[in-house]
Amino acid sequence: MKIMVMKFGGTSVADPARIHRAAERAVAARKKGDHVVAVISAPGDMTDELTALAKRVCEEPDKREMDMLLSTGEQVGIALFAIAVKNKRCDAISLTGPQAGIEADSRHTQARIVRIRPRKILEELRKGRIVAVAGFQGINPEDDITTLGRGGSDLTAVALAAALKARACEIYTDVSGVYTADPRLVPEARKIPEISYEEMLELSSAGAQVMYSRSIEVAQSYGVVIHVRSSFDFRPGTFVRKMKETTMEKANVSGLALSTSEVRFSVVEVPDQPGVAARILSEMARNDIPVDMIVQSAPTHRGVNDISLMTPRHNRKEAKAALEKACRELGAQRVDEYDQIAKISVIGTGFRHHSWVAAKVFETLAKNKINIHMISTSDLKISCVVPKGHEENALRALHKAFQLHRPPRK
Amino acid sequence: MKIMVMKFGGTSVADPARIHRAAERAVAARKKGDHVVAVISAPGDMTDELTALAKRVCEEPDKREMDMLLSTGEQVGIALFAIAVKNKRCDAISLTGPQAGIEADSRHTQARIVRIRPRKILEELRKGRIVAVAGFQGINPEDDITTLGRGGSDLTAVALAAALKARACEIYTDVSGVYTADPRLVPEARKIPEISYEEMLELSSAGAQVMYSRSIEVAQSYGVVIHVRSSFDFRPGTFVRKMKETTMEKANVSGLALSTSEVRFSVVEVPDQPGVAARILSEMARNDIPVDMIVQSAPTHRGVNDISLMTPRHNRKEAKAALEKACRELGAQRVDEYDQIAKISVIGTGFRHHSWVAAKVFETLAKNKINIHMISTSDLKISCVVPKGHEENALRALHKAFQLHRPPRK
Repeated sequence: MKIMVMKFGGTSVADPARIHRAAERAVAARKKGDHVVAVISAPGDMTDELTALAKRVCEEPDKREMDMLLSTGEQVGIALFAIAVKNKRCDAISLTGPQAGIEADSRHTQARIVRIRPRKILEELRKGRIVAVAGFQGINPEDDITTLGRGGSDLTAVALAAALKARACEIYTDVSGVYTADPRLVPEARKIPEISYEEMLELSSAGAQVMYSRSIEVAQSYGVVIHVRSSFDFRPGTFVRKMKETTMEKANVSGLALSTSEVRFSVVEVPDQPGVAARILSEMARNDIPVDMIVQSAPTHRGVNDISLMTPRHNRKEAKAALEKACRELGAQRVDEYDQIAKISVIGTGFRHHSWVAAKVFETLAKNKINIHMISTSDLKISCVVPKGHEENALRALHKAFQLHRPPRK
Repeated sequence: MKIMVMKFGGTSVADPARIHRAAERAVAARKKGDHVVAVISAPGDMTDELTALAKRVCEEPDKREMDMLLSTGEQVGIALFAIAVKNKRCDAISLTGPQAGIEADSRHTQARIVRIRPRKILEELRKGRIVAVAGFQGINPEDDITTLGRGGSDLTAVALAAALKARACEIYTDVSGVYTADPRLVPEARKIPEISYEEMLELSSAGAQVMYSRSIEVAQSYGVVIHVRSSFDFRPGTFVRKMKETTMEKANVSGLALSTSEVRFSVVEVPDQPGVAARILSEMARNDIPVDMIVQSAPTHRGVNDISLMTPRHNRKEAKAALEKACRELGAQRVDEYDQIAKISVIGTGFRHHSWVAAKVFETLAKNKINIHMISTSDLKISCVVPKGHEENALRALHKAFQLHRPPRK
């Protein structure tokens, strides 16, 4: 059975006209011979509205009950989508996450998919039906609904594509693919026709908001080909897949990413002893706080270091508390917080052996008088933290310097 | 285990403040020692809004998908209710109809409860939790969600009270009980402290909109005591229960009901032959159209009859089609439709052997110059169809004539 998974995000099903457009896509694919599983998100702002409603009832609502509440959004989406498909004289059925056999763990509001039992989906596909599956939700061993957290619907789509051995997983969204930089900030940004899982992962974790890294990781593990494309036109978007190593022994810059959703913390004057960085990081890990770009200054003559890191803005409260605890225990001087910053990342391959790329990044920023607060590099990514307000200039300058508006030579 | 079922309708959970008030009631009952099962409806106008949304997608949406869609309303209700209860430091858990073990048949949008398996509810009650169960929904043998149609949440409450052998089933609503007549139309109307299942059934089917008859029938079958009361104050409302026959050999008028939601059809000049009424009614039954007050005129000298009946206004289209089909097949002359009518019913007991009650009804209407279009009587009910515009006068006159503002002598 040739199966295609098509995922429609919240903006793609935000109103009846868009629901019909999404349904038409699915029907067209079905008529071309594919069996179609459509993964649907909550229409428009529904998730935000339900969250706001719950917060009016209680400041910190119970997480199990939040899952019960929020999972209704996708349930509304699949029902309306199936109604629209049937209206086009194509048979369809909607399935909630639990009905579709999506088994998750019990970490309410941020569950992980444990297993998919696609019996019911396959049964319905065999009847020729388009199967609309609610994204973002599963069932835990206690028969409770759990939701999958940020990027949950993409994850549902990719995991289903893996479980069903689908020939592709199309992610329909309001942008037409993955770009060399955010086109709203860099007008000459170019759509990337295809990109490797590794680079897509780096782009995502560096702030490109097309897909969350967890879905890309699953796609990579199971070899699912992802096609990120627009729900508003029919042009091909960006394929994310295993790439042949055409760039072996060559450096390749594929795109730029910007993140303004992080803050920087510095623990100042930490005694220069073995184990201090570990102590700080384990305190962050214990509190489940994501950390990026850990930088330790060289020790001064007074035998002390500064240790700096980046963490998501929405974790700043817990991060500050955790770092202050570690600061006291280590006898460090204080914790500083920097808020007016932006992180620019250059994504590609082969950076480790081609230091000219890093040199060009620093040079370009210097030429544009943009100060660099922090640097972190890997084989696939060079990230620089710059002062807030300079990020657009930096993006445009780097885009030009690396000639990203031109398709790469093969 | 002493169990109390409390049902909160849509108006009782329409906004966060009301949800908190409902939650407080449940917590208070729990603290007094009852184990509490709270049956919750969809907040406010949510069901209507979802229906309107579906109709914007498709004029006649698929019924299975409508159930998938509409069942989210109650799911939102139970989640918010459980969040509010937990906020009051009382443990709670919400369960959808399927999770609560409410098994229904497959008549989508108007399913019937087949069986309740209350294992999960009992397990949660034993943990001391308040269990919030989604009204109006169940699961069919194919694992699909089905909804129970009009009055579905009341039905869920009464059926749960029966299955759990609850000591009572409290129905919280925006009126403070069952009245001798609609207090908005008859200011001197009196709250009825208790009423038998039979009379409550007649009141409901005659148009009193407090509860639908199907819930009362189930309560009667299983001996569930219903307490209809206001969610806005703490005064006792109306108990619906098995009554001792104190009125044996005496007629008793307990209340008046008004229905303006029906239309009258007449099949004119039907040949006076055996089986014609059956033919007409079976055509209505085949189309699942409710029928009330079937009246056949005495045959004229030309050997023809008129057959008239009442049917809900929202069924008028199908009713007209069905009757016109029967009309053609029977060689009757035509189908007339009367729209400007209202049905007044006097509800009580012992009417069959006390014809003075019927006489007094007709007399009172005549004295007030109110013309009667149709009459139908039973031991428990006398219904008269009157011209639209006269219904309030008729109600007030009858209320006074039977002195319903005074409590009945015991």
